Amino acid sequence: MVAPLLTHILETSLYVTELERAEGFYRHVFGFEPIHRDHRMVALRVAAQSVLLLFRRGATEAGSDTPGGHIPPHGGGGQLHLCFAIPKASLAEWETHLAACGVEIESRVSWKLGGVSLYARDPDGHSVELATPGLWTNY
Amino acid sequence: MVAPLLTHILETSLYVTELERAEGFYRHVFGFEPIHRDHRMVALRVAAQSVLLLFRRGATEAGSDTPGGHIPPHGGGGQLHLCFAIPKASLAEWETHLAACGVEIESRVSWKLGGVSLYARDPDGHSVELATPGLWTNY
Repeated sequence: MVAPLLTHILETSLYVTELERAEGFYRHVFGFEPIHRDHRMVALRVAAQSVLLLFRRGATEAGSDTPGGHIPPHGGGGQLHLCFAIPKASLAEWETHLAACGVEIESRVSWKLGGVSLYARDPDGHSVELATPGLWTNY
Repeated sequence: MVAPLLTHILETSLYVTELERAEGFYRHVFGFEPIHRDHRMVALRVAAQSVLLLFRRGATEAGSDTPGGHIPPHGGGGQLHLCFAIPKASLAEWETHLAACGVEIESRVSWKLGGVSLYARDPDGHSVELATPGLWTNY
């Protein structure tokens, strides 16, 4: 049974203790702009076609109703991991930019396929990676 | 300070109790193929340029060393949420396919911009959404 078409990861989610603080970090450091906001969350546009969801911890555990149907419950804890793709040509710029934003680069990894990853922490301690092509066989 | 270029969400992560079970689900239902495997994780290719990381719960909380540098610790619990983009033309096919795979559609939401989301659960209870364009202003 072959799965129907699926084009990309549209949304990845983080659960944060203070929405404003988390939003401020991702806007300031990454330039992601808010495209939706309600009592549970802020949605930030990531590049052309993706969205980062910041949820207030605990606010989504009962699900929620919209005019078009019910959003099922979810919710998480811990320090999650996500990774954003950056062009190889932007790596040095990102290092400079993170430093200028006061964001420490916790680690830098060189991958055998030629990619390089920078790891940093957001205000909730989530592990945010920036990776150039050459990390996986398909990127 | 304008952020340097960033192109898309490369990786989103789930923490699962049984790696084999989770991998089997995402391979069977979504057709994602494994591109890396070690004692901590399985990485599955999602469409052209994205990767779903399945981590064994607890296996990443000490970080890990690679020849090219240190991967910082991370780890999470709960039932997380992620969303994959599907073409509008594939929605009915996905409904049929999920049913054929024995995956219950927990909810269906129609969004005001015209998109439709299907919500299901993976074996760990993570909330997996499939969304057609017309959910966000940029998708």
